[in-house]
Amino acid sequence: MVLNKGFVKITLAQLNYHPGNFELNTHKMLEAIAQAKQEGSQLIVFAELATCGYPAKDLLDFDAFIDQAAAAIEKISNACNTISAIIGTPVFNQQGKGKRLFNAAVVIEKQKVTHTIHKTLLPTYDIFDEYRYFEPAINSEIIKVNGLNVALTICEDLWNLDSVSLYQSSPMDHLSQFKPDLIINIAASPFSNTQQATRHRVIQRNALKYQLPIIYVNHTGAQTDLIFDGGSFIMNAQGESIASLKLFEEDLQTFEFDTEQCQFTQSEHKTQTFNTSIGNIEQALVLGIKDYFKKLHFKKAIIGLSGGIDSALVLYLAVKALGNENVLAVLLPSKYSSDHSVNDAIALANNLQVQYHQISIEEQVNAIDNTLAPFFKGTEMGIAEENIQSRARAILLMALSNKFGYILLNTSNKSELAVGYGTLYGDMCGGLSVIGDLYKTEVYELCNYVNREQEMIPQNIISKEPSAELRPNQKDIDSLPPYPILDAILKLYLEENLGYKELIEKGFSPELVKKIVNMVNANEWKRWQAPPVLRVSPKAFGTGRKMPIEGVYSL
Amino acid sequence: MVLNKGFVKITLAQLNYHPGNFELNTHKMLEAIAQAKQEGSQLIVFAELATCGYPAKDLLDFDAFIDQAAAAIEKISNACNTISAIIGTPVFNQQGKGKRLFNAAVVIEKQKVTHTIHKTLLPTYDIFDEYRYFEPAINSEIIKVNGLNVALTICEDLWNLDSVSLYQSSPMDHLSQFKPDLIINIAASPFSNTQQATRHRVIQRNALKYQLPIIYVNHTGAQTDLIFDGGSFIMNAQGESIASLKLFEEDLQTFEFDTEQCQFTQSEHKTQTFNTSIGNIEQALVLGIKDYFKKLHFKKAIIGLSGGIDSALVLYLAVKALGNENVLAVLLPSKYSSDHSVNDAIALANNLQVQYHQISIEEQVNAIDNTLAPFFKGTEMGIAEENIQSRARAILLMALSNKFGYILLNTSNKSELAVGYGTLYGDMCGGLSVIGDLYKTEVYELCNYVNREQEMIPQNIISKEPSAELRPNQKDIDSLPPYPILDAILKLYLEENLGYKELIEKGFSPELVKKIVNMVNANEWKRWQAPPVLRVSPKAFGTGRKMPIEGVYSL
Repeated sequence: MVLNKGFVKITLAQLNYHPGNFELNTHKMLEAIAQAKQEGSQLIVFAELATCGYPAKDLLDFDAFIDQAAAAIEKISNACNTISAIIGTPVFNQQGKGKRLFNAAVVIEKQKVTHTIHKTLLPTYDIFDEYRYFEPAINSEIIKVNGLNVALTICEDLWNLDSVSLYQSSPMDHLSQFKPDLIINIAASPFSNTQQATRHRVIQRNALKYQLPIIYVNHTGAQTDLIFDGGSFIMNAQGESIASLKLFEEDLQTFEFDTEQCQFTQSEHKTQTFNTSIGNIEQALVLGIKDYFKKLHFKKAIIGLSGGIDSALVLYLAVKALGNENVLAVLLPSKYSSDHSVNDAIALANNLQVQYHQISIEEQVNAIDNTLAPFFKGTEMGIAEENIQSRARAILLMALSNKFGYILLNTSNKSELAVGYGTLYGDMCGGLSVIGDLYKTEVYELCNYVNREQEMIPQNIISKEPSAELRPNQKDIDSLPPYPILDAILKLYLEENLGYKELIEKGFSPELVKKIVNMVNANEWKRWQAPPVLRVSPKAFGTGRKMPIEGVYSL
Repeated sequence: MVLNKGFVKITLAQLNYHPGNFELNTHKMLEAIAQAKQEGSQLIVFAELATCGYPAKDLLDFDAFIDQAAAAIEKISNACNTISAIIGTPVFNQQGKGKRLFNAAVVIEKQKVTHTIHKTLLPTYDIFDEYRYFEPAINSEIIKVNGLNVALTICEDLWNLDSVSLYQSSPMDHLSQFKPDLIINIAASPFSNTQQATRHRVIQRNALKYQLPIIYVNHTGAQTDLIFDGGSFIMNAQGESIASLKLFEEDLQTFEFDTEQCQFTQSEHKTQTFNTSIGNIEQALVLGIKDYFKKLHFKKAIIGLSGGIDSALVLYLAVKALGNENVLAVLLPSKYSSDHSVNDAIALANNLQVQYHQISIEEQVNAIDNTLAPFFKGTEMGIAEENIQSRARAILLMALSNKFGYILLNTSNKSELAVGYGTLYGDMCGGLSVIGDLYKTEVYELCNYVNREQEMIPQNIISKEPSAELRPNQKDIDSLPPYPILDAILKLYLEENLGYKELIEKGFSPELVKKIVNMVNANEWKRWQAPPVLRVSPKAFGTGRKMPIEGVYSL
């Protein structure tokens, strides 16, 4: 091991943790420590709540869970003979007041925990609910590790720099008085299509405000609906990103910090290169599928292939995540299905070299119609009959799933989910909603991106007019405005909380706004029962959006 | 109007609000004010967040929503010429720091808002997530209304008296220094089978600690999964409940407060008489069904009647809530259904004078079997085939629901939901889970209670051995331990957060504990897609219990 006087080698460990899997998480951290030691590193930095994974949710309510986190810290401490470590972990609040836990970072030096600091700012909005579990830090202090004075902060602790600040105070305002050498921020910051840029901007503002270099360590990997994109980095006191770790995968990198100059010795200023937004989304969704299966110990996916663009995209993403040999496509045509639907679906399956079955729903639908004939006599064909077809498909897909151990992937998009253009217990079925956070216009965009070099998704699937094919000559446009308009309204309503009046001021017709907003509101009951949606926007359906089913939405 | 010098007449208004329905809520409050004026009242007290309803959830994120709450306060102020009012409402945080809103109580006197106080302690646990929206009060002050010095507090503000306190400080400790004449607490405290006693004890401890009389005003009515039981009351400084309002319905009562003696003039100490616990649960569930339908503008329910105890109880409750003319029972026997199932179901429908259809699922199931035969060839009958039957029933129920405008009521109980003994998209379907927070043993208890005077539910339904009847001679006991043991373990695990070790210490066998706990954990993915569950326990499945699907539960 080389110990340069005046230089500290610091390793950033960006790992894919698994909530509650202390054995795996500890093992990963021990391996990272071993590797960092080999690189002569003197300090290794892990992410927020690394021992237990993020989000551990109500598992945090079990004493046994917190005890296991403590045991993990002890095990890791033993390995820290020639290296120090900073690790996020939950700890009990021993003060007899306040919430049961702190969201903590422990500092290990010479095999002992030398400091435990607590998170001050607890995000409790959107998908975050940290105040459900944690008491905010009561004090904050500079920590000393490897001779460095470090302002050790946990994720949100650096996020109070907006003009209207969400919290009463910023821990860095206090810590900066004590002249730290650098800021270390350990984070659990999930991906969204705006988050990488926001995160960079926030950390940069801290570097510039406090004139300090910053180490930022994030999680990677997906936890059901949440996708962590990694992208950990180091930044100099001038707010320039010097080096960054990989996006969407584990990475370990060691950097040299000059303790005299208080700066990293890396001379190149490697600006963080973000993938194009849509490319990021593709990577995020692939990781989301991959980790969902891996963490639940499943391998194989089943997808109902309609010949439409949504299921085509989901099939493509599933193949990318799981391999074509692990994906089964099932075509389930009815009498309303057009020939091109079947042909397009087959062409797609062939393009992606995916096995497919073609199973008619006719016999089942006829049996249901016969069974219900005495009750439906004299009524006109309508939603009930459309839903029967959709649900007949779901029964067959779920039967194959249950029999052979596939997870059914859901193919609803965000626009459909928003306005309720889908059948509960029918096409809304599935263990995971892959593209439920992509508006229909984004589905097109991503398909075009997928096809940028080679036609993976047959062009006809992208070009033809969208249809649910649940009645003769049905088109989406019969029930909905054109998608570019629909999606524009949805985005303003869902993501920017604009009410009727504000939407109309944006130039949309009052009738259209009323219609769309009412459709969104009237379908909260359906979305309550939707599968988890891979989150790629700042506001996805699911745990980050809580709306009353019974509410009146006179906005 | 009589104005006795030295006496203030105070009205407690316990109303059933509707989230977001400002028109209705305001109308109800204006009517209450009119009635209180007629009774010569000088002060009327409404509940927490009365203007907008509770829980308004993310509707609070819309500026237009908060503006409407302000408009409601203005409208109500105009009516407060000869009477003062205290009303819970959300208000903007104007301080440029912290969350966007306060959870406030405004005091109106002589048609003007004279005080606005903010809630200090924001419950953020179980079904509560108030810190998602609200900034805690920065200051607290005694308010003056009708010459009284009032410690005005909002719900949780009085709930910090446990030996280990959840919050850093108690607003009453501060307010009591200023010698208030009484405490007024406006609340939104939902029902659970332990809550009435807990609430009484908490308020009593405050009365005794601060030696002050207390006015406590709660909501009544159900909001999807949450049921508010009302039971507002007044208590003297000796901690004795003097008078209480009705349970589970709206009520308005006026009391006289002697400002010289600082006590209520009611001489009788009417101890709050709680209904037996199981009787309360019955009332809660009936209100839950009734309000879900009323607030969604539905009238009619459809229920799949298996001949088993769960669907029998749900049918009984639905009839009680909606009237027998608004409930349709559907028997959906298969070849595995026993004769007694059909006969028992018919006897029940006749007892309750409910219309019923008997619809065979045979033709549909045969069609599905035929369709899948090429794929299932050579496999053994198992879960897949069982689920097909359950889902075939769901398709028919949903078709009738969609065609004729019924809401399908779900009949799963808490024990089943816990261990995953149910079919997703099959018997787990429904708009509302009526008994999903009742363990199977509680289902028996409630059925016996229902039959206490008259056999409403045929005894044979209660006496026979439980079976899903999805394969020949199937019994619940084939897959599950006896329900009293199962439920005991479930309750300790779900409601008291005991881990494996602690459960085994309670005397259960390690194998059984492992099996049950693993079943619970392995079914988070199913429960994610379950309908909203009427909450009657301190820990129901749904929004109050957040568990990771992908988590590892090595507790």
